[in-house]
Amino acid sequence: MGGDFAPENVVAGAVQALQESQGRFSIVLVGHEGRIKSELVKFSFPGDSCSVVNATEVIDMHDSPNAALKVKKDSSITVGVSLHRDGKVDAFVSAGNTGAVLSASTLILGRLRGVGRPTIGILIPTEHGRSMLVDAGTNVDCKPRHLFEFALMGSVYVAYILGRKHPTIGLLSIGEEENKGNEVSLEAFRLLRKSKLNFVGNVEGRDILKGKVDVVVCDGFVGNILLKFGESIPSFFKTKFKNFSSQSVLNRLMVLFARRGMRTVMKELDYQEHGGVPLLGVNGVSIIGHGGSSAKAIKNMIYRAEEIVQHQLTMRIQEAMVQYHA
Amino acid sequence: MGGDFAPENVVAGAVQALQESQGRFSIVLVGHEGRIKSELVKFSFPGDSCSVVNATEVIDMHDSPNAALKVKKDSSITVGVSLHRDGKVDAFVSAGNTGAVLSASTLILGRLRGVGRPTIGILIPTEHGRSMLVDAGTNVDCKPRHLFEFALMGSVYVAYILGRKHPTIGLLSIGEEENKGNEVSLEAFRLLRKSKLNFVGNVEGRDILKGKVDVVVCDGFVGNILLKFGESIPSFFKTKFKNFSSQSVLNRLMVLFARRGMRTVMKELDYQEHGGVPLLGVNGVSIIGHGGSSAKAIKNMIYRAEEIVQHQLTMRIQEAMVQYHA
Repeated sequence: MGGDFAPENVVAGAVQALQESQGRFSIVLVGHEGRIKSELVKFSFPGDSCSVVNATEVIDMHDSPNAALKVKKDSSITVGVSLHRDGKVDAFVSAGNTGAVLSASTLILGRLRGVGRPTIGILIPTEHGRSMLVDAGTNVDCKPRHLFEFALMGSVYVAYILGRKHPTIGLLSIGEEENKGNEVSLEAFRLLRKSKLNFVGNVEGRDILKGKVDVVVCDGFVGNILLKFGESIPSFFKTKFKNFSSQSVLNRLMVLFARRGMRTVMKELDYQEHGGVPLLGVNGVSIIGHGGSSAKAIKNMIYRAEEIVQHQLTMRIQEAMVQYHA
Repeated sequence: MGGDFAPENVVAGAVQALQESQGRFSIVLVGHEGRIKSELVKFSFPGDSCSVVNATEVIDMHDSPNAALKVKKDSSITVGVSLHRDGKVDAFVSAGNTGAVLSASTLILGRLRGVGRPTIGILIPTEHGRSMLVDAGTNVDCKPRHLFEFALMGSVYVAYILGRKHPTIGLLSIGEEENKGNEVSLEAFRLLRKSKLNFVGNVEGRDILKGKVDVVVCDGFVGNILLKFGESIPSFFKTKFKNFSSQSVLNRLMVLFARRGMRTVMKELDYQEHGGVPLLGVNGVSIIGHGGSSAKAIKNMIYRAEEIVQHQLTMRIQEAMVQYHA
């Protein structure tokens, strides 16, 4: 029931995943049974690969997460995450209220041992492939120890899901020298340096798009601001090219001719295309998608969940937590 | 003696300013008298418009600012700022060690009444003209009250130097709602709202390049990271266009044809072009330039200083400090 186009897009995306994946997994749809079933009848798929579990309430995008979780006990988010906790499903996927999915996942699944703050990392485009920016906005006021956890979890994700051996970790700061930073980052630097993680030191704002490290660590305040700043770059250039284009006929021709190239390149900055992001550090697999998710985005989120389950990411993070804290 | 190309570029820039400005101001060059004079003889300009004050020491770019200020008592920075304090000159301009210029200006000129933290704001390009991002990296760990001061000083700068009446102020945060932010920003929000400043509320990362407000307020940690991130955007696109271009002959033609347009647009992001930035909140005019300043950049810094002196910006800030704190 989550997201701006539920249950239509959610059901359509789930069915697409079932059709394409040919029996690799089955899907349990959670929410208003009647509404979901009236969507399901529009499609054909192997009958036993999809079932529905009823949930009578919906937490919508404007609900205050914690209040809503308390009041709406039978919401699709609570029921879905609980199915996962009870071992009925291997992963939970939602395009619903981000805060509610975060809170429900943390409360119902619990945190992994040693994790103070579960986190979300986002893969961002760089000049050389992708890097993970973690935390992407979940944890606003952080202690040095939380930044250390983000580094560790991000690095396990990049190692297992992107298949990069010994991913490099950089701490986002205002200079490369270890004495550059704010109070929290200076202490996080010390924690990271004395750990066995592949920590290369501070990185600066200019190193992110260069792809200098595999994992860029920051608090969620900085992460959120940076990601939203990044999202706004295409619009900035669109306006500037429009101005340029209006200056002369030659300029207009130039922009027209180059339009396809620009679109291709700008599209790289649209990291929302890639579907949902996993909540790292909870005892389970919980994938959070954009509220405006298309059916395709929902499908990709389901594949993302499958991938994470197959790579046993939760267990890998738990192992790393124990190993690096020893 | 400051910057990577001193005294050559500094002297050349100063002479250019003298030649163009036709007697509006005179310049005192501070540093190794011999080296400066051997540069000066290369140019012709009205003899009485330029003088040299000797300073035997140089704080270089790698010196630790505070240590250097203690040890090198006769540095060009210390001597130059002292001339300003003593009323011998109306403004101080340097492309030298940023930290040393900051410290020397704060210590020697003193802070204006009510200013806890002098700050540097940088004018950044947006879809609609320019906005000021303040603090741009000077103050890393800030209290709510410092963010309030940045808002006030940035807004006075934009009002008098850019001539915008009642500039709008936005507090950089992770959501528009007043309950979104970190501990410091939440409290800063309350201070700003109860003040008489033209505070429009929180702005997000995506609002910066849109030019949603005239003054974007953040701490120097976030400001530094954002500005350096912004600087790296042209390089990112250059690489991406190169990749795109290498994919086919048509793509290559497209990129070749559009090159001039892209350069023009990308250049807008190069806010370093505009010369130096003023240190706001000290009792005087101190302009800090990039270490790699060209002669043209030095010239522009001198004009910037002239403009600020003419608009009596220091007095305006002091007045605003008193008015808005009453």
